[in-house]
Amino acid sequence: MSTQALKKTASSSINGLDTAALFGTVDAIKANPSLGRFEFRAQNRWINGGENRSRIKEFFGAGNEDTSRTAAFEFVNGEPPVLLGNNEGANPVEFLLHALAGCVTTTTVLHAAARGITIRRLNTELVGDLDVQGLLALDAGVAPGYRQIHIRMHIEADCSDAELDDLLAFAKDHSPVCNTVCRPVPVTLERVK
Amino acid sequence: MSTQALKKTASSSINGLDTAALFGTVDAIKANPSLGRFEFRAQNRWINGGENRSRIKEFFGAGNEDTSRTAAFEFVNGEPPVLLGNNEGANPVEFLLHALAGCVTTTTVLHAAARGITIRRLNTELVGDLDVQGLLALDAGVAPGYRQIHIRMHIEADCSDAELDDLLAFAKDHSPVCNTVCRPVPVTLERVK
Repeated sequence: MSTQALKKTASSSINGLDTAALFGTVDAIKANPSLGRFEFRAQNRWINGGENRSRIKEFFGAGNEDTSRTAAFEFVNGEPPVLLGNNEGANPVEFLLHALAGCVTTTTVLHAAARGITIRRLNTELVGDLDVQGLLALDAGVAPGYRQIHIRMHIEADCSDAELDDLLAFAKDHSPVCNTVCRPVPVTLERVK
Repeated sequence: MSTQALKKTASSSINGLDTAALFGTVDAIKANPSLGRFEFRAQNRWINGGENRSRIKEFFGAGNEDTSRTAAFEFVNGEPPVLLGNNEGANPVEFLLHALAGCVTTTTVLHAAARGITIRRLNTELVGDLDVQGLLALDAGVAPGYRQIHIRMHIEADCSDAELDDLLAFAKDHSPVCNTVCRPVPVTLERVK
C-alpha cells in the first residue's frame, strides 16, 4: 500500500471500509511489523459419516487475543448422496470455494479503497474441477485436490478498465486464501492422545 | 482403495457410511473413470466492506448434474473489527480452516470404513499462521496466505496405533482440500462485463 495511495484518498469511508482506520492499521504495522502476525483457529467435531461441525471464535492478531466475538460461529460440513451423505451441509471442497470467493472479493474491495476507487457492484462465480479417483486412491496419477479453479468476476467501479484490470491482478496476487491455494502451503497433522 | 480393503469389510455400514454404496461407487468409477470427474460451484455477492455472501447448490458429478438439493446453502463472510469489519461472519481464512478440518475428517472416516476400522470419536483443532503484511503489500517477502497450518487430531478407533498412524498419513495425502492447500493449484480470474 503506497503513500501515493494514501494521498489519493480523501473520504474517510470507501466501499464500506473506514479508510482512516485502514491507513492507521497500515502505519501501525509499518512501525511494528510484528503486529501483522495473525493466528486463526478452528475446532471441528465429527458427527457421523460425512457430517462434521466446526466452531470458530478466538484468534490472535495485531498483538492481542481478539475479544470482539461474543458467540462462536458454527458451520456444518456434509456430503450429497452421490458422495454417501445426506446434504447435511455444503461439502468441504465447496466451503473452500466460498472462502476463495470471499477472500478475492474482500481483497479487491480493500485495495480499491486504498486506491480511492469506489466499487458499485462485485459478484463472482467460481467453478472448480476435481476427480474423485484421487480421493479414492484409484489412480496415483490423479491429484485428490482441485485441478484448477476459475473465477468469473462481474465488477462495476468508478475507474477505467485498465485501472480495474490492474486492481484485479493485484488483488488476486494478495488475497490470503488465493495465495494459500496457488502456492504449496505446509499442513502438518499430529495425532494427540 | 484395494481389493484387500474390500474383503476386510463385512458390515454394510461403518462410521455412518454405507460401505456397499461406497464399493459400488468405486467399482463404477473403475469401470468408467470419467465418472470420477466433479465440478463444484459457488456464486458470491459483495454486500459492503468485508461482508459478502455465497450461494452453493448445483454441482456436476458421477456423470450427471446433481438434483439432490432442494434449497441452496448460503454462507456469510465477514471480518472482525481489527480487520475493519463487524463480525458479519467468520472470515475467509477461517472458512478455509473449516473446509480443511472437514475434509481431513471425512477422508479419514471414509478410508477407515474401507479398511474396516470403526471410529468412535474424531475431533480436530486447527491453527494457521499468517502475516497481514502480505495482504497489505507492505513487504514483498511476506506471502499473503497461510505460512503453515497445523492440525491436532484426537481420534479413538478399534485398531492399533500403527494402523491409525498409517490411516492418518493416507487420509492427509488423499484429502481434496488438504491436497489443494499443500500443492500449487492454478486459480484464474476473468473479468466479465
